[in-house]
Amino acid sequence: MLDPYQLKLDFPILNTRTPSGKALVYLDNAASSQKPSSVIEGTTKYYSQENANIHRGIYHLSQHATELYEKTRIKTSNFFRAQCAKAIIFTRGTTESINLVAQAWGRNNIQAGDEIVLSVQEHHSNLVPWQMLALEKKAVLKFIPIKADTTYDLSGLKNIITRKTKLVAVSQMSNVTGTIHDILPIIERARQVGAKVLIDGAQSSSHLKIDLVGMDVDFFAFSAHKMLGPTGVGVLFGKEEILEEMPPWLGGGDMIETVNLESSTYANLPAKLEAGTPNIAGVIGFSYALDYLSKVGMENIHSHEQEITAYALEELSRMGGIKLYGTDDLSQRGGVVSFTVEGVHPHDVGSMLDEEGVAIRVGHHCCQPLMREWSIPGTCRASFYLYTTKEDVDALVAGLHKVKAIFSRVARK
Amino acid sequence: MLDPYQLKLDFPILNTRTPSGKALVYLDNAASSQKPSSVIEGTTKYYSQENANIHRGIYHLSQHATELYEKTRIKTSNFFRAQCAKAIIFTRGTTESINLVAQAWGRNNIQAGDEIVLSVQEHHSNLVPWQMLALEKKAVLKFIPIKADTTYDLSGLKNIITRKTKLVAVSQMSNVTGTIHDILPIIERARQVGAKVLIDGAQSSSHLKIDLVGMDVDFFAFSAHKMLGPTGVGVLFGKEEILEEMPPWLGGGDMIETVNLESSTYANLPAKLEAGTPNIAGVIGFSYALDYLSKVGMENIHSHEQEITAYALEELSRMGGIKLYGTDDLSQRGGVVSFTVEGVHPHDVGSMLDEEGVAIRVGHHCCQPLMREWSIPGTCRASFYLYTTKEDVDALVAGLHKVKAIFSRVARK
Repeated sequence: MLDPYQLKLDFPILNTRTPSGKALVYLDNAASSQKPSSVIEGTTKYYSQENANIHRGIYHLSQHATELYEKTRIKTSNFFRAQCAKAIIFTRGTTESINLVAQAWGRNNIQAGDEIVLSVQEHHSNLVPWQMLALEKKAVLKFIPIKADTTYDLSGLKNIITRKTKLVAVSQMSNVTGTIHDILPIIERARQVGAKVLIDGAQSSSHLKIDLVGMDVDFFAFSAHKMLGPTGVGVLFGKEEILEEMPPWLGGGDMIETVNLESSTYANLPAKLEAGTPNIAGVIGFSYALDYLSKVGMENIHSHEQEITAYALEELSRMGGIKLYGTDDLSQRGGVVSFTVEGVHPHDVGSMLDEEGVAIRVGHHCCQPLMREWSIPGTCRASFYLYTTKEDVDALVAGLHKVKAIFSRVARK
Repeated sequence: MLDPYQLKLDFPILNTRTPSGKALVYLDNAASSQKPSSVIEGTTKYYSQENANIHRGIYHLSQHATELYEKTRIKTSNFFRAQCAKAIIFTRGTTESINLVAQAWGRNNIQAGDEIVLSVQEHHSNLVPWQMLALEKKAVLKFIPIKADTTYDLSGLKNIITRKTKLVAVSQMSNVTGTIHDILPIIERARQVGAKVLIDGAQSSSHLKIDLVGMDVDFFAFSAHKMLGPTGVGVLFGKEEILEEMPPWLGGGDMIETVNLESSTYANLPAKLEAGTPNIAGVIGFSYALDYLSKVGMENIHSHEQEITAYALEELSRMGGIKLYGTDDLSQRGGVVSFTVEGVHPHDVGSMLDEEGVAIRVGHHCCQPLMREWSIPGTCRASFYLYTTKEDVDALVAGLHKVKAIFSRVARK
């Protein structure tokens, strides 16, 4: 088991106070995680002692930076049990990873009438790129529905994923409800019809132990900043044979073999898909984040979050006047709790909690279609991580009691 | 005037030693610059006290991070005298900025038979994206040649830029020779025929005072990491009215207005072109770099580099057996010196200088067509910045004397 009180000491920002003088209670981890000292110091070390452009320099500094960068690729590959390191492409974030597939793979493989299967609860980043591709190619989008408990409704799967399906792109864990979806039947069905599978791992990557080869997915996309790493770094995993066949996406330095004025030949993987100077410091900083997560253990993180989530659900249920979203089956959810407070707009809840030092997210969480399905403008979302304590949840609950008290006074007036 | 000895104290890495025990002499600034303490500490401060995802949070931390991020956009706009802040789009780097234009603007505006004009000395990042676009659209690439002194040969400009030209994309300063090109006649000619103009400012942005409105360019692309800022941050400036008409490039969070399952409407500028969580820490870190450059003054930086370049050219000419590339007219060059050593492969020069602690770049510098034009495999390139001293140049020259001594011994054997 992990000790969140001990871990919290490693995160400088979690020991600061808000302008209102309250201790910061950070419950917006589904949007971005905080960073441990090792990541911050690793970044400082890079810029103070190791900084140089990579891949093209023969002096020590450049070769050392290249080594640090490429070792992070190997570490990422091992952490996620990928096929091999060259199946790991560094991008700016999940959004860019998914767009890379939509544009480089999609433009080459999707034709008029082809079907792309998503789910109704996808984040905009796993929805809009496919809308753009479908519009361009006259392809058809189909959607896996969700049940009342927010898990995927797989009852009609055979009619949704068919021989016409070229790609299935779904998230493994919901950023709105924390629902951990059972994606194996979806992958299996896609295999039956010969469709490719992309998993949006933006949430699952930071909370679950991932085994890419075991899951047998074709693409897997995620961001470093949600898993203790720097901003501006994402990863696209793609099966080597698929990436090999893909045309390059961006043109520029590093992704070429021979350049003539009129035409060029392209480098091998992974360089082919990483044009230009990458976010070197960010990728190297991510290496420290992976070390930290490895030391704590992803299974421990998941257990801890389930414990915190169970506690939060219990406390929030007990309050009354709180509507909770998501499944009751704790084995199917991670550290996210979405709720609304009866009679209070989520925006007001968020603002008032902020004055208590409690940072939660309110709104549509980049999932407008899901909000529309639920006929609400948005939810309040508290999302946890390895450093979240029961006292953090207590602060949330105490804040919500204040919100309710103030609004019931307003209502009485 | 600036004092490079004083400035050098602000850059931690420039006060370190290489593994061979030599003081680091960093002369690879055209590839990437080093970072002052203010940028490094600003990044640490961000991750330790200010980190949160931006634009969508109503709690203090998120609003503060949003403010820092958006203030950097305004600062960038002012620094480069852009039309307005929303004409500044943050990207991963110059390469991504240029590809954004090639893909989002290019796909929408370039048709079969249209002509795109480049120059023969473009960096691969301003060549390959246009080759890819031309191939897709059956457009034609044309090239502005260079004279023996490496400046653009504008004698045939009227026949190169014609009514068929839809876009002219050229660099303002060469990363190989440091030549500062006179781009005004090119822009003027483009205006006559109604073509758009993209300037690759990867080099010029860090060494010259830029006035985007004054230059009247349509697009201008550059990277933060070459101008004292973090890695993974670039900028695309685009005229507001052109960016307004452009379709979005990447789909995802932040760039949308309303999302339905089947289709979406898009946000206004600049959000429309910044999908997903950006490199928040990187952009905010870039703000400190702009402050630093503003304090020193871009005119001072340019004058200093011209002085250092003049000194280097003089010292290298005096050595004998060194072939220099680039114009003799110092008013037309910035802080880059490209050369070859008679009888010694650039690779060997680079390796031997590295042992002396002198970091230069050797190779094709992402300009293979130019190397082919010169019939050489590559050059040695020393590139300077605001912190480069005459002693750094002396170390380069001393190292080259060693290289020549060793190779003349080898030759005598």
